[in-house]
Amino acid sequence: MRDVAIIGVGANPKWGELWGQSLRDIFVEAALAAIDDAGVDHVDGMYVGCMSSGLFAGQEHIGSLLADYLGQRHLPATRVESACASGGAAVKMAALEVASGHSDIVLAGGVEKMTDVGGGDATYALGTAADAEYECYHGATFPGLYAMIARAHMDRYGTTPEMLAQVAVKNHDNGALNAMAQYPFHIRAKQVLDSIMVADPLHILDCSPITDGAAAAILCPLETAKKLSKKLPIKIAGFGHATDTIQLAQREDMTWLGATAKAAEQAFEMAGVAPKDVDLFEVHDCFTIAELVVIESLGLVGKGEAGKATLEGRTARDGDLPVNTSGGLKSKGHPVGATGVAQVMEVVKQLRGEAGERQVAGAKRGLTQNMGGSGGSAVVHILEVA
Amino acid sequence: MRDVAIIGVGANPKWGELWGQSLRDIFVEAALAAIDDAGVDHVDGMYVGCMSSGLFAGQEHIGSLLADYLGQRHLPATRVESACASGGAAVKMAALEVASGHSDIVLAGGVEKMTDVGGGDATYALGTAADAEYECYHGATFPGLYAMIARAHMDRYGTTPEMLAQVAVKNHDNGALNAMAQYPFHIRAKQVLDSIMVADPLHILDCSPITDGAAAAILCPLETAKKLSKKLPIKIAGFGHATDTIQLAQREDMTWLGATAKAAEQAFEMAGVAPKDVDLFEVHDCFTIAELVVIESLGLVGKGEAGKATLEGRTARDGDLPVNTSGGLKSKGHPVGATGVAQVMEVVKQLRGEAGERQVAGAKRGLTQNMGGSGGSAVVHILEVA
Repeated sequence: MRDVAIIGVGANPKWGELWGQSLRDIFVEAALAAIDDAGVDHVDGMYVGCMSSGLFAGQEHIGSLLADYLGQRHLPATRVESACASGGAAVKMAALEVASGHSDIVLAGGVEKMTDVGGGDATYALGTAADAEYECYHGATFPGLYAMIARAHMDRYGTTPEMLAQVAVKNHDNGALNAMAQYPFHIRAKQVLDSIMVADPLHILDCSPITDGAAAAILCPLETAKKLSKKLPIKIAGFGHATDTIQLAQREDMTWLGATAKAAEQAFEMAGVAPKDVDLFEVHDCFTIAELVVIESLGLVGKGEAGKATLEGRTARDGDLPVNTSGGLKSKGHPVGATGVAQVMEVVKQLRGEAGERQVAGAKRGLTQNMGGSGGSAVVHILEVA
Repeated sequence: MRDVAIIGVGANPKWGELWGQSLRDIFVEAALAAIDDAGVDHVDGMYVGCMSSGLFAGQEHIGSLLADYLGQRHLPATRVESACASGGAAVKMAALEVASGHSDIVLAGGVEKMTDVGGGDATYALGTAADAEYECYHGATFPGLYAMIARAHMDRYGTTPEMLAQVAVKNHDNGALNAMAQYPFHIRAKQVLDSIMVADPLHILDCSPITDGAAAAILCPLETAKKLSKKLPIKIAGFGHATDTIQLAQREDMTWLGATAKAAEQAFEMAGVAPKDVDLFEVHDCFTIAELVVIESLGLVGKGEAGKATLEGRTARDGDLPVNTSGGLKSKGHPVGATGVAQVMEVVKQLRGEAGERQVAGAKRGLTQNMGGSGGSAVVHILEVA
């Protein structure tokens, strides 16, 4: 396999409720931004991560649609879907295509247009990432599933609502410095704890929002990047991808994310590094509890220690384990198919030293963890300065 | 890139209206049949082609779901979507992953469970393969779009309803010999021409049906296959993948499938062969007119000559260009995400000499052409005896 680098990243300028734009509009903005950032004059292939353009926008077949609207007629383009891990899966597919030698310049994009349907319809669409027959039919939706994970974590490890709230406070502190964030403002723990309860113990400020957004990255062989890229090439040092039972009830331990642990194990082995060698982490905080169980499953802290580590500031931007410097899904927004690509975008910007006020000084290596459903899919990438 | 072979194929035993089984049931049947046919004891990765499990079955995230129900917890598994070309795209992704050296044994599957919704909902779901904003909102669905292609072909080349009907007659003659076919019976041209008109000039017997079905193939490096496979290994000699405008109205020529022509050009170049070197063809006859414009766009016959070639029997099983020996989408059924994989299955069986009464004598090389929408995506594979 050839080594692969990321030479361009981009997103539509502002994530949020974009009622004046359609799915195709925001994707093309993101793709053109990434192409411009990379300075390439063509792409050889495209993968688009998208969870449910069918249910959210009445539009499947977006590989053809988006290649067409991007002005790239005849471009080989396919949609990739692994629920909320679709963006990460698209980056992995693009990396494999470049690694294989089949193509030299591949665009990995992600998009979700979620606000053109009513709230109930959005909750239904998101629920299709769970087991329709054994979870959704019985009334379970994602706030409820993650609330069960939170309850189990509290019971087993003594995790508190204040620890959960601190995840939201920290991520909003980071997102307040990110121009593309949907909710770029600071919040206080008391606001989280006083906000309406969605699914006990998760308040509404424990939940990531419904978002319209798109992101894109340009991949090419590392050797080509070193010769031709105007920007600092960022190497994909490792990746991992795994699944788990789609049903939460089938897991041996609800507080442990087996797919994330397995994907991380693969990525760390491929990169030849350990968690201690990584300078920053973009992880899947769809709910505050998710960030806690993710960083435990990645091995950044021990089982049951994530809440305490968060309260102590270890995962803050200036801590020893900076997590979600972009603002995460919580503040930046969570257009599900785009999230995994935007995680990669944040790490690339950090490693290039382009993260402005959010910059982690001297960052040389970063990790992304993108997750589908209640943890049924996970994709991990380890990126480093080439 | 490593050379890649197909060492196992399988499908659920009978395609049709399978109200007693769910999406997960039929997929697992197909995957286990392919695994058994290949004689492997594990797989390293899985791609599942599926157009719209969200709209047809209220279930996205089937990478996780199907790996789980296949008993393969933690298997890297992703859904691939290119509308009705999703199955072909899944085979291509699997081939790239094996070619790259990242994985040795990869399962490419396809599935669609289409009959659990009402007819109107199925037509809506299929319509999402067209341009939602510029075609569907204005009332166009696929019978209408293909009827426009048929009208244009008739006007330009003098193609007749009898020529269209003969495509159906021929494919049912083949499908009558295929145990898995949804409609395994012979029909006469008069029955086609007397059947109710769906979208002039397409009668209902010019249309492929709504089908529940699944298919799977097992891919591995050619060198491994030669050493270990008990069955005759079938090499993937070439593949191609291209898109076109998703909107029919944007094409320069409605009777020419640019994505198919481009994908075929790539596949023929990669395989180092020409149409005359290929012994049989499985192509996307979602409507009878589709088979005609496909075989012209593949270069099997000249522009405007497909209708005449069909009436002359050239595309029959014993003709010089055998097309759709399986029965095609028309007789075998068209579970959209599974179709591209089932095309590969038919060619593998023919090249192994396992096609029974449908066998094309001495077949050594075959081509599959899988298409999305009104031709907005196309995936072509060229398979040959290794």
